[in-house]
Formats: sequence, C-alpha cells, structure tokens
Amino acid sequence: MAGPELHPLIYERVLRVAFEEDLGRVGDITTDAVVSAGVHGEAAMIARKSGTVAGLGIARSAFQLYEPALVVGLVAHDGDRVEAGAVLATVAGPVRGILTGERIALNLSGRLSGIATATRSMVDAVAGTGTRVVCTRKTTPGLRALEKYAVRAGGGSNHRFGLDDAVLIKDNHIAIAGSITKALTRVKRSVGHLVKVEVEVDTLGQLEELLKVGADAVLLDNMDPEVLAQAVAMVKGRLITEASGGITPETARVKAESGVDLLSVGWLTHSAPILDIGLDIA
Amino acid sequence: MAGPELHPLIYERVLRVAFEEDLGRVGDITTDAVVSAGVHGEAAMIARKSGTVAGLGIARSAFQLYEPALVVGLVAHDGDRVEAGAVLATVAGPVRGILTGERIALNLSGRLSGIATATRSMVDAVAGTGTRVVCTRKTTPGLRALEKYAVRAGGGSNHRFGLDDAVLIKDNHIAIAGSITKALTRVKRSVGHLVKVEVEVDTLGQLEELLKVGADAVLLDNMDPEVLAQAVAMVKGRLITEASGGITPETARVKAESGVDLLSVGWLTHSAPILDIGLDIA
Amino acid sequence: MAGPELHPLIYERVLRVAFEEDLGRVGDITTDAVVSAGVHGEAAMIARKSGTVAGLGIARSAFQLYEPALVVGLVAHDGDRVEAGAVLATVAGPVRGILTGERIALNLSGRLSGIATATRSMVDAVAGTGTRVVCTRKTTPGLRALEKYAVRAGGGSNHRFGLDDAVLIKDNHIAIAGSITKALTRVKRSVGHLVKVEVEVDTLGQLEELLKVGADAVLLDNMDPEVLAQAVAMVKGRLITEASGGITPETARVKAESGVDLLSVGWLTHSAPILDIGLDIA
Amino acid sequence: MAGPELHPLIYERVLRVAFEEDLGRVGDITTDAVVSAGVHGEAAMIARKSGTVAGLGIARSAFQLYEPALVVGLVAHDGDRVEAGAVLATVAGPVRGILTGERIALNLSGRLSGIATATRSMVDAVAGTGTRVVCTRKTTPGLRALEKYAVRAGGGSNHRFGLDDAVLIKDNHIAIAGSITKALTRVKRSVGHLVKVEVEVDTLGQLEELLKVGADAVLLDNMDPEVLAQAVAMVKGRLITEASGGITPETARVKAESGVDLLSVGWLTHSAPILDIGLDIA
Amino acid sequence: MAGPELHPLIYERVLRVAFEEDLGRVGDITTDAVVSAGVHGEAAMIARKSGTVAGLGIARSAFQLYEPALVVGLVAHDGDRVEAGAVLATVAGPVRGILTGERIALNLSGRLSGIATATRSMVDAVAGTGTRVVCTRKTTPGLRALEKYAVRAGGGSNHRFGLDDAVLIKDNHIAIAGSITKALTRVKRSVGHLVKVEVEVDTLGQLEELLKVGADAVLLDNMDPEVLAQAVAMVKGRLITEASGGITPETARVKAESGVDLLSVGWLTHSAPILDIGLDIA
Amino acid sequence: MAGPELHPLIYERVLRVAFEEDLGRVGDITTDAVVSAGVHGEAAMIARKSGTVAGLGIARSAFQLYEPALVVGLVAHDGDRVEAGAVLATVAGPVRGILTGERIALNLSGRLSGIATATRSMVDAVAGTGTRVVCTRKTTPGLRALEKYAVRAGGGSNHRFGLDDAVLIKDNHIAIAGSITKALTRVKRSVGHLVKVEVEVDTLGQLEELLKVGADAVLLDNMDPEVLAQAVAMVKGRLITEASGGITPETARVKAESGVDLLSVGWLTHSAPILDIGLDIA
Repeated sequence: MAGPELHPLIYERVLRVAFEEDLGRVGDITTDAVVSAGVHGEAAMIARKSGTVAGLGIARSAFQLYEPALVVGLVAHDGDRVEAGAVLATVAGPVRGILTGERIALNLSGRLSGIATATRSMVDAVAGTGTRVVCTRKTTPGLRALEKYAVRAGGGSNHRFGLDDAVLIKDNHIAIAGSITKALTRVKRSVGHLVKVEVEVDTLGQLEELLKVGADAVLLDNMDPEVLAQAVAMVKGRLITEASGGITPETARVKAESGVDLLSVGWLTHSAPILDIGLDIA
Repeated sequence: MAGPELHPLIYERVLRVAFEEDLGRVGDITTDAVVSAGVHGEAAMIARKSGTVAGLGIARSAFQLYEPALVVGLVAHDGDRVEAGAVLATVAGPVRGILTGERIALNLSGRLSGIATATRSMVDAVAGTGTRVVCTRKTTPGLRALEKYAVRAGGGSNHRFGLDDAVLIKDNHIAIAGSITKALTRVKRSVGHLVKVEVEVDTLGQLEELLKVGADAVLLDNMDPEVLAQAVAMVKGRLITEASGGITPETARVKAESGVDLLSVGWLTHSAPILDIGLDIA
Repeated sequence: MAGPELHPLIYERVLRVAFEEDLGRVGDITTDAVVSAGVHGEAAMIARKSGTVAGLGIARSAFQLYEPALVVGLVAHDGDRVEAGAVLATVAGPVRGILTGERIALNLSGRLSGIATATRSMVDAVAGTGTRVVCTRKTTPGLRALEKYAVRAGGGSNHRFGLDDAVLIKDNHIAIAGSITKALTRVKRSVGHLVKVEVEVDTLGQLEELLKVGADAVLLDNMDPEVLAQAVAMVKGRLITEASGGITPETARVKAESGVDLLSVGWLTHSAPILDIGLDIA
Repeated sequence: MAGPELHPLIYERVLRVAFEEDLGRVGDITTDAVVSAGVHGEAAMIARKSGTVAGLGIARSAFQLYEPALVVGLVAHDGDRVEAGAVLATVAGPVRGILTGERIALNLSGRLSGIATATRSMVDAVAGTGTRVVCTRKTTPGLRALEKYAVRAGGGSNHRFGLDDAVLIKDNHIAIAGSITKALTRVKRSVGHLVKVEVEVDTLGQLEELLKVGADAVLLDNMDPEVLAQAVAMVKGRLITEASGGITPETARVKAESGVDLLSVGWLTHSAPILDIGLDIA
Repeated sequence: MAGPELHPLIYERVLRVAFEEDLGRVGDITTDAVVSAGVHGEAAMIARKSGTVAGLGIARSAFQLYEPALVVGLVAHDGDRVEAGAVLATVAGPVRGILTGERIALNLSGRLSGIATATRSMVDAVAGTGTRVVCTRKTTPGLRALEKYAVRAGGGSNHRFGLDDAVLIKDNHIAIAGSITKALTRVKRSVGHLVKVEVEVDTLGQLEELLKVGADAVLLDNMDPEVLAQAVAMVKGRLITEASGGITPETARVKAESGVDLLSVGWLTHSAPILDIGLDIA
Repeated sequence: MAGPELHPLIYERVLRVAFEEDLGRVGDITTDAVVSAGVHGEAAMIARKSGTVAGLGIARSAFQLYEPALVVGLVAHDGDRVEAGAVLATVAGPVRGILTGERIALNLSGRLSGIATATRSMVDAVAGTGTRVVCTRKTTPGLRALEKYAVRAGGGSNHRFGLDDAVLIKDNHIAIAGSITKALTRVKRSVGHLVKVEVEVDTLGQLEELLKVGADAVLLDNMDPEVLAQAVAMVKGRLITEASGGITPETARVKAESGVDLLSVGWLTHSAPILDIGLDIA
C-alpha cells in the first residue's frame, strides 16, 4: 500500500457510533448471558474470498474499544493481496469481547476491503499505462475518510475529499455562468494558491475553449476512447486529464490507453460488494 | 411500502456529519464562486435505472438542512417501483443550495434505493410462497437505522436492530456453553418477556435438541433446500423458521419453497449496488 | 442479580455529562486548594440504609474517569441485598480524585440502588406467585438504559425500552383507529417477526374483542383483583397478561394472585427514593 | 415563581437525548402504524394530583422538537400551585406528534413538578421564619440545571451548581488540612472575589474556630434545634448560616425557628416523587 | 471581499459551544431579572475604531440562535473598510435577546474583524507588488475555518487548512529523511494529483537541491530581502515562492519587492488584536 | 501560580476539536510519508521570548492524545516566569507523534502563555497597591475556561465565568429598568445566597444612589484616577470596587493607586499577542 494507516483520531467517532448502534440499550444479551466474564479464547479473522484487504487496523481498534484487554495481532496488512482462507489477524483474550466486537470489526474491514479489492482490480486492468485510478465524492455518508483510505490501500489515488479542497466546474456551473471562460474568471478571483481548478467538458469544442483560458485539470466526461485520445492529444500535457463516466474493469484499459492521466470511478465506493471476511473461534 | 417514513430526529445526525464531511473548512468553493447568492432555479431528481426507491424524504431533509428556502416536492414515494427516467422529486429555490446539496442527497437516496431495489427483487423472487425476506446486522456503521428502513421500503422485513433486542445463539455460543440446552438455560434466566430467542442450528440433530428445549425461532444455517424442507417439517410451526447462508435472487425461490418463514440476506445491506439517481437542472 | 453488568460504552456519555455539569469551568476549587496533588488515601462506600444495590460498577467507572490512578474494589455486587452499614466498595489512591469523584459516584449508585431496592420489595411482595415485576417508559430522560438495568438488578424485568421495540396499542390509538380490531389490522401490516404486539384493554368486553383478533400480550389497565382474575381466566394462556395502574407494594400481592404474568409499575423508576449511600474516608 | 424560564439552549441537549432514547432505531411503531400522518387533534396536559408545577415550557419544547406543527398553549405556568384535575397546557395539531411526544413531555414535567411540589411544601413549612429552602448537588446526572430550576419554581433557592462556583470545606477537607484554619488559609490564596467560602462544622467548638478566621457562610451539619439556635446566636449575623442533615417537612419548621438563614435539603432533588401529570386526548 | 460568506453549517458548533459557555446552568440572570420578556427595542453594532470587518453574518447567526425573533440587518459587509463610529449592523426585537446575545456576537465579530484588519494592512503594504499575503496554521483551536475566512475577508489568501491538504516538508522532516531529495522521493510515492508539495529551505544551497528534484512550491524561511531576491531569481517561476519569518507591516514591502509570490504571516491569526466593536441600544 | 492545573476533563473537547481540524480527512500527509512509524526521537519546547507560561500541562495532553507513547516532561510549570531560550518541556518517543502534535501543543500553550504574560505585566504594574487584576467575558468562543485559567496563571484573578454566576447590572439594564434602584429591586427577588450583585456606574451621582440601596460590588466605568479616588472614598469599604475601561500597563498603576479593589482588563484575553514558543528536535 502506498501510504500509512489512518490515525485512530480520524475514525474513533465512527467506531463509537457503530457500538452505540449495535449495543443499543442493554448490550449483547446473548453473549453476556451465555459466556462468563472470565472465559478467555482465541479467534482469527479469515478471508473467505481472495482480494485486497483494508481496515485491519480499524478492526483492531474496534475490538479494543469494546474490550481493552484483547490482544489483536495483524497477520496481513492493509493493501495486501490475500487468498481465500488466509488468516488476516488473530484476536486473543476475553471471549465476550471477541464475540461482541466481531460484527463491527467485520462490517468495517469487509466494506473497506471490498473497496480495496475493487480498486485493485481496476488498477491491475490499467497496469503499465501510467494512468491512475481515482475515486469520487460518491461515498457513504460518514465514512468518506475511511473509504478514500481504502481506495489508497487498493492502489488507487484520491480525488477531492470535499467541496472545499479543489474546484470542479461542472456542466451546471458552466450553464449558469454562461460559458467556461466566465465560470473560470469568477473562480480565479477567489481561489488560493494550493487549490487546483478542474473543468468538466463534454466535447472537444469545450476543451478548446478551456485550453485558451487555462486551468489545472480537465474532466473528460463520457467520451469514447477515440475522442478521449483526441482530447489528450489536444491537451499536450498542459492540463491533468481525467476520464469519467461508466468506467468498468472491462472498459478501463481501453480508456487508459488513450493516455489520460486519471480514470475516476464512482463505482469503487458506491457499489463495490464487500470482501467476505469471517471470524473463526479457535 | 409497508411502513411510514423515518422521523428526521432519527437521521439528523447522519445528515450533519455528511455535510461536515463535504463542506470541510470552506464550503462549496466552486458553486459559491460561480453562482451568485440570488440565482434561483429548478431541478429534478431522476432515476437513471429502474428500481425501487427509498430515502426520498431523507434527500429532501438534506437539501433543506443546507438551504431552508428550497422547496422539495416528492413525485415518487419510498417503496415505489420506478422506471429509468422517472422523476422522483423536484427541487426549486436558490441554485447554490441545489448544487451544493446534490451529492449528499443523491449519495443517501442512491444507496438506500439500491438496498430497496435489491430487497424488492428478492421479495419478488419468493412471491406467493409466504416467506418473508429479512436483513441482518451486516450494515454500514452509522447507517443501520436507515438501511433497515430501506429494506422495509423494498418490501422486506427487519431482523434484529442490534445485539440487545433479540437473542441469537450462534455456533460459537453453543460451543462455549457446551450444548444448545445449556446455552438456552443461561439465556432464559435473564431474558425479558418481549425478547424473542433464536438459535442457530447447522444440522437436523441440533434442531432435534432445540425442539426439546424450546425457543421462539430457529436459524437454519447453510442448509440445502431438501434439508431445509425436512427441518421445516420437523418444526411443525412450533418455531419461526429462518434460512440463511448464501441466498441470492437465483436460489431464493427454491429455499423459500421449503416452507421456511424467513430468508435472511446479508447481501441486501452489505453488497447491493446503488440505484443510479441523478439531478437534472431545468 | 439475573443479568450481567452494563458495558461502559453504554453509559460513558452519562458520566461525561455528569462531570461537565459538576466540574463546570474551573473544577473542584475546594479540594484542589485544600488537598495537595500528592496526597493518597482510602475510602469506603457505605450503605447508610439497608436495600438492594445497583450501579457499583458505574460508580467505579466514575471515579476512574476522573482519576485513572484510583483503585476501586467492589465488595458488594449489583443485585446484592445489603444491610445498613455494609461496605459496598473501597476506593484507594489520590485523595483529590476520591473527594471530587464522590458526588457523581454516589448520585448514580444511590439513584440506581433506590430503584433496585424498590423493585426488590415489589418482587418480594409477589414471591411465589409466578408473576414478574416490570418497569415502564416513565424513566429519567437520558438515564433509561441505566434505570432499566437497576430494575433488573432488583430482580425485576424490563418492558419496552422505547417506542420502537414493541407495539403497545393504548386507548388513544384504539379511539383513533375506531376499534381494537382496526388498530391491530394496521399494525400487523408493518410489524417484524421479532416485535411483540400488546394491546391495552380497560374492560372484559374489550378483552373479548382482542382475543378474537389475537396479539402477543394484553395490558389490563386499572382492574380490580377480581376482574383481573376473570380476565386471566378468559385469556387461558393465549396471551401474556399484564396488569398496570396504581400498583404499590401493598396491593401488588393481591393483584399478582389473580394469576397475571406481569405487574408493570411506573413508580419504580419515576418516584422511588434513593438508597442513601455515603463515602467514609479511612 | 421567583425567576424566569430556562432558555431552550440550556436544555435542548436533554430533549435530543430523550428522543434518541425513546425513538430508538425505528420510531413510534405503534402510532405510526395506527394513526395516519394527516390526522389532527387536541389534547390537554392535566394534573392528576394537586401540587406546584415546573417544566411546562420544557414540555412544550419537547412536543415541538418532534413536531414543529404542534401548537402548545400553556394554561398554568411554572411555579403555579394547581389542584388535581387542573388543565396545565393544551396541545393541538398532528395526532402522531401528540402521542409520540407525550411520554417525554410528561416524564420531564412530572419529575420537575415533583421537585417543585416538594420544595413548595418545605417552603410553606417554614413560612414566616425568614429561612430559605435550598437544594444540594444531589441531583440526577445530566439534569442538574433543570432540577435546580424546579427548586426555584417551587419557591426555593439554589446552593452551588457545581464544584466550581463556591467553596465548601467539608469534614474530610478539614481532616486532611489539619484544621479549619489551615484549610481556609489554603483556600483564600486562590479564590476569586465573586466566590463565597463556606465551611461545614459539626460542633460549636469548630464554629468558634471558624468565627476567628472568618468566611462567608457556615454549614451547621446535623445539629439539634437547640444547638442550632446556640450556633446562630454565636454567629451574630457575621456569616450566612445553613442547617443540613435529615430535614423533612416535619422537622423543617423547628429547625428554621432557630433563626438559620438556610435549610439545605438533598431530598428535594434525589427522592421527591413525581407529580402525576397525564395527557387527555379531546 | 474576494469570496462568499461561510455557510452556517460550518460554524454552528462554534456558536453552540459559545452559548453553553456563557449561559452556564441558569442563563443571563441579570437580564432575565431586570428586563421583562415582552420588552422590544433596537440596537446597533458600531465600530469603535476604523478597520476592516469580518464575521458580521456570524454575529447575526449568534443573535438569532439565541432569539429567533430578532431581526438583524447588515449595514456593512465582511471585507468592508469602515471608519470609527460606523454602524455595522442593526438588531431589533426582544431586548432580552439583544443583551444576552451581545457578548458572543461581539467576541466573534471583534476577533474576526481584528484578523481582517491586520490582513488588510499587510495587503495594503504590499499593494502593487503582485505578492499575496497568506496565513498559517497558527490559529485558535476550534476556530480555524473562521479565522482563515477572516483572512480572506481582509484581502489575504489561505495556506494549508490542515495537515492533510498539502505537503509541507520542513527542516525537521529533511533532517530525518537525510536530504531534501530523499524526503521528496518518499512523499511523491503517496501524494494525490490534487495535492501540492512545498519544501522549506533556509539556504540557497538547499534551494539548488530542491530545484533539481522539483516540487510545486518553496518556503524561503527567514531570508533577508537580498537573499530572497536571489532565490526568486534562481527559481525563475518554476515554483511558487513563499517567504516566511518575522514579517511585519514594516518589513512586508521590502520582502515583497524581492518578487516572491507569497508572504506568510502567522501574526495575522495568533496575535492580531481585536477590532473594537460595541453595541449601542437605541 | 496561585491555583492548581485544570483537569483534563475540562479541556479534552478542545483538544479533540483541534485535532479534527488539523488532521482533516487524511492526517499529517507529510510526516506520515517522510518519517517511518518506528523512528524515535526527542524534542524540547523552548520559549523564544521571555514571559510567563501557561498551558504546558495542556500541551502535554495534546501530544499524548495523538500518541499515548510520548513521554512529556515539564521543566517549567504554569505560572513560571521564563527567559528567552528556556526549556519548558521535553518530549520523547515516536517522532511522528512529536511532529504532528507540535502545532496544536504550541498553538495552545503559546496563546495561554501570551495571556499569562500580559496578565503578569499588569499585575507587576500594580504590585504593592493591593489591587487585583481581573479578566472579563471578552474571551475566545470555546476557550473561556482555558483563557481564564491563563489569567490565574499570570497572577490575575477571575471575574464572572458566564452570565449565570454573578449579576452585573450595566447601563442598558439601568436604562430599561428606569433606575439603579428599580433594577436592583428586580434582581434581589430572584438571586441565590451565593450570587454576588454588581452594578456599573458612570458617575458619582449614580454611585450615591447605589450606596443607598446596597449591593456587593460596583463597577466604576471609565473614570479618571481622581474621580476613581473620590468614588473609593465614598464607598468606604462597603462594596467591592472595580475599575474598568481602557486600562493599559501604562495607566494601571495610577488607577490602582486610587485604592480600587479590582482592575478589570478585557485586553488580557481579547488582544494579548501569543508568547512565542517553539519546538526544537534534539
């Protein structure tokens, strides 16, 4: 994986909300009734399918938020490709903590690993082209920082984290401003030196207008591979080029071969199935 | 749809977190720069694919939390089946509010409609059998109340909301207690009169043991349709019967025809793709 | 006590709010001025009156939230009957922590022990009848999970935790629906398989109607013992029977002897006096 | 009532927590199923017993937080004495809002009115003596501001709101410091000009020491009326005098006739039963 | 002012905390006692000194959070230069709301206007040079979004909002990595396409190394104007150049005349005095 | 320093918000990329200027909230006067934690030390006069408890913490009530025995009226030293006397020599520059 693990201060609120939600007003009435407080044991988090994992450190935090006495050892690490049956982590200590923490640990690591796996397959599909796979703002409300982290774990890269960290002038903005030029003029008055400006274009004509005014990046929306290649040729490296619109593992390579810098794929975060991870008690 | 809409007090925190996440430290720097505060306009939420919708009232709340002056009219209602191209809602008022609120409104309604659509297809697959489709605790952390609501909107029914509102004795509990009978004995000492007790069994032998001790429901895990039918026959209506394990739209009907009362499907909430919903500015 | 202790994640917010409230903007200005940071000492939580205790583990959490270095040993346990003068717990460590944490620890354990004591006296009053004592939703805002826990510690059982975990059709619902039958019909369309349905009836005529339609439980409100007995006879075990309305330790036994399954008593949580618990510095 | 109503910003968090607690993960499943969204109606909050009311404005806020369309008219006002059967407030609008908001509105106003009623009976018991009735820090965690407000509504007065707004040197502080004089010396080094200093004494000998050093107030703990009178005579108005320890409506007058300025009564907030308030649908 | 107003969702938490802090456990006991609820009046926010204003819309939100019936009219707007005595806003409605909201409204607008005024004086000092004035992360904990907004209102521009939205390799990073080149190599492996990379250099030798490896921007720390000019000459526009270190209104122009793109000034947010704003009741 | 350190429960929320603000959605992307998780090191917090320090314990909490493994040793203590170059604290452990926690630790301790330094210079200016220096409610929203603590660390004393802990009748209150006497009459009906009452007067005539009615303290606003001396003479120790209005280190002594008990200085908290504190890696 390219980058480091997320710091717990960034996701602690997510874990607390998850436990509030799951413990409700009484707690785990099954485990608390059946298992005595003193019973200790061991368990392993196992990948039921092959894939790329993410969120194992977060799963560890989940177990330990509920039961600080649990010892969680990570066998795999975020970004690793694993085979079905692989042990991802071991959990040892009070069995109540293992059984009650299980679902939240699995819900989070399963979802994030699903995103990492989807990203990895997309990254593999474009391997060697030099094109990067990036995600969008189509994330689960409340989980954006984690889901964008999972994309990085899968070998992808992040686009905007919110509405505030980059400008993206879309079709509706252009329509309201009257033209790309007018929209850009308004934006350039207020934008700081760290903020990059990207403009969405649907046609080569629009791209031509954009190249005259200048920006940092262009979003080439829903273009066929050939048009995409023409666009890249027109840009001549003056802008970062990004393709978007219905990109799947099947179509990714063809699009990437147009030479675009980035493929942005909403599907990674809004529709990737989980990676099935289970917990086996030793 | 079977039930009423969720009350905003139940999901207001989700909306606030979503806006914190998306507005960041400055807000929508593109829209605020390009669109003047006084510009008014109209837009429509449109289903890009056919499906069953959920979360339209929540989308309305999202728009209005950001811009109270927006008037949102629901054309479709949660639980409705819609065709691709159908107008789901109209939004009128300050354009800034429409463009900035768009992503959160669509992220939520898209996800919830995806769940409703998945549920509906499963419910349709078992139509006429008398079997109900239920969800699990495999939900997105922080969104459980909303995702369970989406299952209801899709015609499904809810299983436990947390670890506290029903007993579910699983294989690990039985292993630790020593037997189904011992686990049940422990549980019955503490459980209130409103709480139903369910036990997971993997074999007909275990079912036999359970039937002697008694409970409210049995989870028949990973059984073939024929074994399932035998189990249902053994139970003779004394317990609610629930089948789980790898149930897909393809296998659902066969499993339902065994006569089980419930099919529980984790996939509805952990892996259903979104329903693609877009916003068109008029 | 029947069940296990509440997990700290369920009441941590209550403790934090309690300390915010009590420390205010400066903290314990008396103790901080009079007692040096280095002074260590010991103290004991003592029952000033006899009763049944609850909340001792919560008191321990309170002391340790303020001063992690405090060692708190529980001598009695939630659900224990204790005599006046009994040592309930010992606290050893920095004296500042003992003196500043004292009031919150005692406010919580005193209130919860008061509820447990009231419950226990009610449970004792009906001992041998087979009737269970249950609480209501008439709890202190913000403390419901804790107060319901105290009822369990006192040997009682819990009714609904909220408006969402069981159906209770009351007189006003029936009036608006037009009849018990109509109200039940509406409810049964939306209710999940885990949710029990209870109906309040004031007369035997209403009970008769209810028995025809069917439900899980009946609330027999404000009935004399003889009428209650008639009602129980009519029900013949087909419904869980619950009596409510002005039940006191004096009247409880007579009502219980009617054979009802449950006596529900709002008084346990809304009007029970605290159990006086004090802290003696060694 | 002596003072003005509490501002909603002070108790809004209490209301939100109360609704989270009661609505849970689905909301009011009974009312939502039985009563259509469009049904309007009227109801009245009625005192079932005579007493002094408090928290009616808070009850109104509770109804309106859940359903802004409800119109709540206050017929009685906080601090009013009311007879059994008196109408305290009217509520008109969507019936769902009336039925779902009912319990939280009644739980809060019942508890606060119980405190106001207990305070009023104590204040009446000492009428004409010039002694004021004050409360303590023995309040319900999370509700201190509201319960202290209810004491004011009942004609009482407030003691410290927390550990930070006045100094109270108690027996344990004195024991640790070595003497009253030493404890006071330490305190006076750090205390601001707005903060009053009170010292607890158990004997007239201690009082004598205190009078030499000087303070703002003295807490005369657990003294018989005659000793109390002697203490008041010794003080000669140089300190505010406060009596505490087992003060009941029966013993209050005798204690007050000793001439003490204040009677402090923990019972008002930790053990007063609620005032029974009900809701009648018109 | 360059940009638009901050959206209330971004600062609502600040306002709530401010009122919690100021209302405490009772509210405004002076105003509530002296002024009847029905008294209406008018007031004006007045600049007591000349300067550049910021936070007027936030002041309006503060008044209206406490008293929604207050009508607040903005006479000046964020970014305006005003003279001493200028009316900035009018407030009309319940006098209790005016007097209780006053301090929070003035504390916020005074502080933000102080920052805007300091920024404006710095911007004026470099007028005509093409150099922009930017702020740092040396902001008040909890108020960063607001203080950075005030810098924009004063004509300045924003640097990083946090540790996550741009890379800034400082001296300590370089020391640990071993060299600028090594530090940059590590960074470039993980950074997204929207994130700019800046490196701090103290000498022209370091700058030379940096120019070989390449980055987006260079922070020229604590350089004399002549060295700064040399550095700018060496860069030849290939990097954004930023000067930092002890920049005051007196030294700003000389530094700017070196041709650097940005002057970053911590003083704007960590040490600027407030702009004195008062409230006059009509 | 006069008093003890603030308890972490009082400022923990401030630290969490500060880290949310600074870590954003990814964390410290520079340090995480450049410095490996295993690298350990040492650093020292150094005063770059001479002054009086405050907030060193809070800085320690900041470092340890982010990285519990950091060992922070305080060399100086809150309230100490330090020279430029003095080591205030040492930090040892994982270098990532040192570099990422640095800014928040310095932002807080720099601001609080700035307030302590300003207070100390004011206290020194009036040394020997018996006059105390007090702060106002003109504090940074969200930081009041910390800033008032810094004033105590600097040798000053605190005025009101909020609107609820003392009465301050100002000019506007008097204008609305009609006279000082009328305003005081209204206040005395509701005020508790711990709450002191202060009245602002602008003239000796007003003071005369106030002395007839009586109160605890008088705020002598904007009076010249001679008038102030006359006022003090009129009061003859019957009230606490406080002078306010444009008090600077230069004018403080003259004002204090009038014999007033308190000088209140808003400038300490709203406009004091920070004390420059840096972090040097060993």
